[in-house]
Amino acid sequence: MPPLADHDERRATVAEVAADLIEQRGLDAVTFREIADAAGTSTAIVSHYFIDKKDLLRFTYGAAASRARRRLDGQVEAESEVDEKTLVGAVEALLPLDKGSRRDWRVWFAFWGLAVADPELAAEQRAHVRGARDELAGLIGRLVALGHLPEDLDVEDSARDLLVVVMGLAAQAVFDPKDWPPPRQRAFIARHIARLSRG
Amino acid sequence: MPPLADHDERRATVAEVAADLIEQRGLDAVTFREIADAAGTSTAIVSHYFIDKKDLLRFTYGAAASRARRRLDGQVEAESEVDEKTLVGAVEALLPLDKGSRRDWRVWFAFWGLAVADPELAAEQRAHVRGARDELAGLIGRLVALGHLPEDLDVEDSARDLLVVVMGLAAQAVFDPKDWPPPRQRAFIARHIARLSRG
Repeated sequence: MPPLADHDERRATVAEVAADLIEQRGLDAVTFREIADAAGTSTAIVSHYFIDKKDLLRFTYGAAASRARRRLDGQVEAESEVDEKTLVGAVEALLPLDKGSRRDWRVWFAFWGLAVADPELAAEQRAHVRGARDELAGLIGRLVALGHLPEDLDVEDSARDLLVVVMGLAAQAVFDPKDWPPPRQRAFIARHIARLSRG
Repeated sequence: MPPLADHDERRATVAEVAADLIEQRGLDAVTFREIADAAGTSTAIVSHYFIDKKDLLRFTYGAAASRARRRLDGQVEAESEVDEKTLVGAVEALLPLDKGSRRDWRVWFAFWGLAVADPELAAEQRAHVRGARDELAGLIGRLVALGHLPEDLDVEDSARDLLVVVMGLAAQAVFDPKDWPPPRQRAFIARHIARLSRG
């Protein structure tokens, strides 16, 4: 890492290295020593940017969540006019459909394993889930207002349904990718979104 | 633990202690030392029953999965004649609706965190998911044969839907129990099962 890189950029670089380590060797492999070796720097540099392992893990988790959020926002904003396809794209942006998103899901699962017994991490997990759900609800609300979805659709319930389906599908697909190739994931989601149209 | 207890029973007792430790203090708290202290025995006894920490964790995970399976089987077998309510009971048996099932979900999440970078543990996770899905598919198939569900219902897809919903709901409810009190979990599942009847 170049010495003059900006603070946030440095933290982001370290978080990328940590995400790769988690995916390949699990949480236990994430030490300042391993991170420093993988990033070609020293533990002194890593510890300049992160207080401790927990700080590093929280940032790594947050970075994975932000990437998913950017993928979701990218789908919504790419469309000048939103329609049902926008919703399909938004939901697909959250699924483990490619290398990057599969890695992010693995990072989340590793983090959930810690959040089980850590109230602070659990609070962070809650906030991310509620944020993603609110974003889906906002999009579904716009689709209803534009007449693309039935006007009597329960927007909150529909957003809840879709995020439950995304999380349940990802939890299976990440550990059983042969059973959930991308076409099956897409078909599964398409079927759930089509149900919204039927009210 | 009494010295003459049977081998399997001893392992089951240790797994109970381990599940409590995971729920309260996380995976890192699970050491032979902590287990022995919590069970009022010695590390020599614990290591007589488990080769290493991984052996203990796999058994603890398997025990949680077996408990869920027994709850599911119990619902199905309790009914002399199965109907839609049997399916509701079977799915509810898998949800984090009480203290015991919430603990089991926490154990699973802790385990997923490890399975992320451990192919053997991931294989175990796959097998449990597929087993639960097959059991749901068997029950849905019986309900179709008995005329309780539409004859053109896709049994495999329906079982897939329900288990995805169970896992996604649990992943939210365990970290956000205020947002998912038991009545909301039950209503959510009832709504998904009612959809099967509509085909």
